[in-house]
Amino acid sequence: MIASDSPSSAISEADRRVVEEARRVAEERLWPRAARYDESASHPLESWADLWERGLLAAAVPKAHGGLGLDMPAYVMVIERLAYGCPSSAMTLHMHSVVQRFIDALATREQKERFYPEVVEHGKLFASWGSEPGRRGGSHAPRRAVVAPVDGGYAINGVKHFCTMAGAARRCMVHCAMDGYDGIEGYQLVLAPSNAAGITVSGGWNTLGMRATVSPTVTFEDCIVGVEALLGEPGDAMRVGVTEGFGLGYAAVYLGAAQRALDYTVEFCKTNRVSPDPDLLSRNLVVQRSVAEMSMALQGARLALYESADRWQAADPSSRRVLAARAKYMASHASQSATSQCVQTIGGRSARKDMPLERLYRDVRTATLMPPNVDASLEIVGRAELDVE
Amino acid sequence: MIASDSPSSAISEADRRVVEEARRVAEERLWPRAARYDESASHPLESWADLWERGLLAAAVPKAHGGLGLDMPAYVMVIERLAYGCPSSAMTLHMHSVVQRFIDALATREQKERFYPEVVEHGKLFASWGSEPGRRGGSHAPRRAVVAPVDGGYAINGVKHFCTMAGAARRCMVHCAMDGYDGIEGYQLVLAPSNAAGITVSGGWNTLGMRATVSPTVTFEDCIVGVEALLGEPGDAMRVGVTEGFGLGYAAVYLGAAQRALDYTVEFCKTNRVSPDPDLLSRNLVVQRSVAEMSMALQGARLALYESADRWQAADPSSRRVLAARAKYMASHASQSATSQCVQTIGGRSARKDMPLERLYRDVRTATLMPPNVDASLEIVGRAELDVE
Amino acid sequence: MIASDSPSSAISEADRRVVEEARRVAEERLWPRAARYDESASHPLESWADLWERGLLAAAVPKAHGGLGLDMPAYVMVIERLAYGCPSSAMTLHMHSVVQRFIDALATREQKERFYPEVVEHGKLFASWGSEPGRRGGSHAPRRAVVAPVDGGYAINGVKHFCTMAGAARRCMVHCAMDGYDGIEGYQLVLAPSNAAGITVSGGWNTLGMRATVSPTVTFEDCIVGVEALLGEPGDAMRVGVTEGFGLGYAAVYLGAAQRALDYTVEFCKTNRVSPDPDLLSRNLVVQRSVAEMSMALQGARLALYESADRWQAADPSSRRVLAARAKYMASHASQSATSQCVQTIGGRSARKDMPLERLYRDVRTATLMPPNVDASLEIVGRAELDVE
Amino acid sequence: MIASDSPSSAISEADRRVVEEARRVAEERLWPRAARYDESASHPLESWADLWERGLLAAAVPKAHGGLGLDMPAYVMVIERLAYGCPSSAMTLHMHSVVQRFIDALATREQKERFYPEVVEHGKLFASWGSEPGRRGGSHAPRRAVVAPVDGGYAINGVKHFCTMAGAARRCMVHCAMDGYDGIEGYQLVLAPSNAAGITVSGGWNTLGMRATVSPTVTFEDCIVGVEALLGEPGDAMRVGVTEGFGLGYAAVYLGAAQRALDYTVEFCKTNRVSPDPDLLSRNLVVQRSVAEMSMALQGARLALYESADRWQAADPSSRRVLAARAKYMASHASQSATSQCVQTIGGRSARKDMPLERLYRDVRTATLMPPNVDASLEIVGRAELDVE
Repeated sequence: MIASDSPSSAISEADRRVVEEARRVAEERLWPRAARYDESASHPLESWADLWERGLLAAAVPKAHGGLGLDMPAYVMVIERLAYGCPSSAMTLHMHSVVQRFIDALATREQKERFYPEVVEHGKLFASWGSEPGRRGGSHAPRRAVVAPVDGGYAINGVKHFCTMAGAARRCMVHCAMDGYDGIEGYQLVLAPSNAAGITVSGGWNTLGMRATVSPTVTFEDCIVGVEALLGEPGDAMRVGVTEGFGLGYAAVYLGAAQRALDYTVEFCKTNRVSPDPDLLSRNLVVQRSVAEMSMALQGARLALYESADRWQAADPSSRRVLAARAKYMASHASQSATSQCVQTIGGRSARKDMPLERLYRDVRTATLMPPNVDASLEIVGRAELDVE
Repeated sequence: MIASDSPSSAISEADRRVVEEARRVAEERLWPRAARYDESASHPLESWADLWERGLLAAAVPKAHGGLGLDMPAYVMVIERLAYGCPSSAMTLHMHSVVQRFIDALATREQKERFYPEVVEHGKLFASWGSEPGRRGGSHAPRRAVVAPVDGGYAINGVKHFCTMAGAARRCMVHCAMDGYDGIEGYQLVLAPSNAAGITVSGGWNTLGMRATVSPTVTFEDCIVGVEALLGEPGDAMRVGVTEGFGLGYAAVYLGAAQRALDYTVEFCKTNRVSPDPDLLSRNLVVQRSVAEMSMALQGARLALYESADRWQAADPSSRRVLAARAKYMASHASQSATSQCVQTIGGRSARKDMPLERLYRDVRTATLMPPNVDASLEIVGRAELDVE
Repeated sequence: MIASDSPSSAISEADRRVVEEARRVAEERLWPRAARYDESASHPLESWADLWERGLLAAAVPKAHGGLGLDMPAYVMVIERLAYGCPSSAMTLHMHSVVQRFIDALATREQKERFYPEVVEHGKLFASWGSEPGRRGGSHAPRRAVVAPVDGGYAINGVKHFCTMAGAARRCMVHCAMDGYDGIEGYQLVLAPSNAAGITVSGGWNTLGMRATVSPTVTFEDCIVGVEALLGEPGDAMRVGVTEGFGLGYAAVYLGAAQRALDYTVEFCKTNRVSPDPDLLSRNLVVQRSVAEMSMALQGARLALYESADRWQAADPSSRRVLAARAKYMASHASQSATSQCVQTIGGRSARKDMPLERLYRDVRTATLMPPNVDASLEIVGRAELDVE
Repeated sequence: MIASDSPSSAISEADRRVVEEARRVAEERLWPRAARYDESASHPLESWADLWERGLLAAAVPKAHGGLGLDMPAYVMVIERLAYGCPSSAMTLHMHSVVQRFIDALATREQKERFYPEVVEHGKLFASWGSEPGRRGGSHAPRRAVVAPVDGGYAINGVKHFCTMAGAARRCMVHCAMDGYDGIEGYQLVLAPSNAAGITVSGGWNTLGMRATVSPTVTFEDCIVGVEALLGEPGDAMRVGVTEGFGLGYAAVYLGAAQRALDYTVEFCKTNRVSPDPDLLSRNLVVQRSVAEMSMALQGARLALYESADRWQAADPSSRRVLAARAKYMASHASQSATSQCVQTIGGRSARKDMPLERLYRDVRTATLMPPNVDASLEIVGRAELDVE
């Protein structure tokens, strides 16, 4: 069981209460709605409202601005527990939270006083749109979407895909290149209002899994924003050690989802028989071996995630990149094999939509595609171990 | 490519033409409809009509009765090629074909003259319903569904689930226990008209994959059939070496589906780039390694399937059980890992429903749950190698 | 690198110095001799002397009796670091240390005052002999070796195999059944002097790996010992939570050995090229991916080992059994695949005995056979997760 | 069982008798000596004599010159069966046989009349020395060893390592670069007498496995040979489709060795019990599953090997390269995992040298390092599937 299993010594009593609150809202509110959101591939609006009510929409907003100001060890535990209830809700909260950390790292006092209350007081979601068609996800290479100074502010032009929360988020943090800069030095985050003129949402959203992360394509065509929409100077975004946190939260999402699949499977095996075997499934040796393999794989990945989170604060951006890649790779690998083994363990019935397993299996499979993907993660970790670059 | 890759020496020139015809109808007719059948989880009616038109609905009907009378080596190649176009169409044809083989092995001349024309001349489908709630699939243990002599014929009572083609098949072969017999000795196949009184279809069909195999639950309540519905004497069905063929065809279905996923992926990699890498994906070392692993895994499994088929004719029922278990295990294992690797190779886009990969991935995943499942297959093969029983 | 990688927060500053001392003696003294001990399959006498000199022979002897009194978190780190130098030396020290813990848990004050000085002051080794021919290792079932009261003390009769340190240890702790007791209730440990009459060492010792753990067969034929040789009452040995610690130490041995193999491989790749590739091996993508996989696998297993050690003190014997099984399984799995991948990474040269890799590969392979072996570990963990028994 | 399992339809009755003879000599002569050759790391002289006596030393010598003239399908079956008795004997015969095929493809009539009788009539072995320190094995890049025209013939200069059969072979085929040619165009095979002046054997031979393939380092210093020692013109050796055959034979060696390990394990499990379990090991479910996995993995690889051999005759050199890489990869992978699982299945005793398992395990592990190694094989197959180059 996820709740009692891993009391990381690193988190405070207050944080522990937040984690417990996350566990409770996940169980009581998120879990009952998860199948419906998946079926309809729609934004988890009610679940976001529940998260706001409990302060969790401001999990990564500094305390000074009314948020919970969670550090990484507590934060990943919150995300993991929310994913135990609904992976898509946890994933969207995580993306929103990374935006909050960018604001903390890059925004001026005035910007913070403008943006944070939208979250804390009004329960608005902020999205982060980085992917572009035909480009490797998570690439540190410059983007094609361009922001350029114009009369009255800045104009954004470009196409983004996999735009999670498009149509529902209040603001979208667009990963752009500042016009006139070379390469990564021009990397510029722009926090545009989602309803700005020049923003067009197109393409449907019908995917294998994580369907409630509704992520269509968005086109920016001379979308004009004010100077207050720019976060930091060109190039700053690469240097503050925030973008690396995406992968850490992804790891927490998969582990939460996979742990749910395992716990469901264990409970099923403790209470069901398959004729002609008169015993409970839990007494079947093959079931025992499978459950052992799954639980150990998830346990190893979880310990690695918590360790990466514990080291986060003291790590520089390039070390954070390695910590995140390691956590994500191990979580992806363990979660994917565990959910597949859960399906096999329960058998034919598990493929029916009246059981949650096939949904969790689909969710985890797509999640592993998020950047840094399996190959990028291996390369990041391997180069670090071999002192290459 | 599946078509040219494996010219099993064991098949005749005439059979080779049938196999080629199967490949063509799969490509031209089945493939364009597969996504729609999956989306709607509906019977592949038009594809069945195409198969009938080309004689393939009678692939396993003896030549003397107007069928193709394919032996196993040619038959599995036909199923494999059809699955390359639409796994659900191939799966339903396979189940239907096993019923034809049971008729050949067990039916009287009168029964054959009644049943075969329905297939050959009228293009009707025959279903096979064996699964029961809470019982291990593929178990050789006696069933709970009972057939008992009554005035005017026989009455069937019981509940079957995973009843593929329910609502579309003309006849359903129900796996029953003959009232008054002990255990496996009472095993009785009954070929009932699907529209007989006392048959109720219930429960929806909404699953992870193989969605066009529409397989709801069916209840028999005093369903009366004539004596001509009974295939053979009680216990005969276990002794004719036909039921073992289910697994062999399943293996062909998964391999066909997985080969399609691989060929799609190879083609994609030969024609696409992912920025910032200027080269085609096919020049990426990790892609090359993945494609090599996938192709070799599928190749090994395919050779094992063909070998099992080559040995089929000369094998007794217990040897056939081992041949099928081996082919199915190897095909399941290879297909499942290959389709998952395809998804990983293409990345995020492959999870979208405008590409076929996520569908093939779902299809293969559920297919591995069919009996004999992974665990049963391992046990069958292992006991044979160790001369146990 | 093992030394800096995992500063478990649970250990004190004093313990940390012990761990560092273990690392140093492993590097400076154990490592240079390891190949020779392997070649000759002989007791690591000089390395034991070095361990004694630094107090490590008394790592598990209570402080009150002049030992280091290490708790589990510090202890497993010591064993791991010693195995980094010489797996066989670490393994023998670990077995010896489990005997010390049994003395602590079961011996009378008089016994402690007799036995501990032999270790602390005289540097003697104590062995533990439990295996019997044709019996499953690690079984909790009663042994066939019998101890029975006779005039002047107790007589031991029976055959033990895999008797590590036979011919070199001062005392051997023999796992016996007390005559007249039923089953596990008669489980009796007897700490006999190795030079007692009636003890015959036979059979050679020529194995794949861990060759310096010299473990021949030993026969007891009316071997008479005094009453002071008995540790506790019959049945006590099962109840004190000490025997479970064997597996935890084994995990530390494999991880230390495998980490050495990985570090050697990394260093090799950072300094070698293979023509015609002009780059260092460390710049080869396949090498990077392999190193990443190995390092993450070992990291996950190490975190799990440390966590098991952290929970040890508060756990009852049945929980300790699970903690040890989990740590040993994960360490076995990770170590075995990592050492094999190291061999593959360096290639043909690594199979030559002038490199340490083939030795470490052999050592780790045999180590995974120690009880609880892979199958027993899976069953223990699986039953615990499923609440069976 | 290897003998009865795979009656490839492609081989003639006469060839079948040769294969059966190979099986018999392997069982009766090679197997009883294999452990001794391993222990002493010495040339299998008596086994070579037995092979000569039965005509197998001339397996690849054309019939017109008194040999068996085996084509690939029969040849790989012979090598596989010999490896079932002694992997090192099979490996050395294979290397010798590739030299015979090079003679067939490149030598003049006069050369053939000089060389073949040494084999056919006098039972001499011919070696093939290609590896060079610090160069990737199997590389198609030019060698550093140089052959240059001098007065009275040609002078060889260079260092070769892994020189199998050094000190025992009558002639050694040295892979050289012809002085004055560029790159691969200068590739020249020279068939030098092993006792020629200027040849120095140095370095010991003490390796993990395949110890009877005695393969020390050999230095050529102005080693003068006559013009009759040159096989073909510079560059010819790359174009005749012979060098590709190395990998195919390696695959046969590993599969034969691994099948022996599996058969030994199966026999052990059919006749042994491990207390306290009263049943034979063959009735243990985990044993059954392991044996099933091993047998299927080896079966898939064997079918792939036979298929590659069947296609050999019709394939051009670049297709042969792919056929060999596929066969070798699948054989390596299956053999390595099977021998490791055999060790695990039997447990601790299997690590002792009085059982053959640890030897076969070591043999197979080193064999996978032979070119094309795992990584090269994956790349060759992947590029072919993706039509790259």
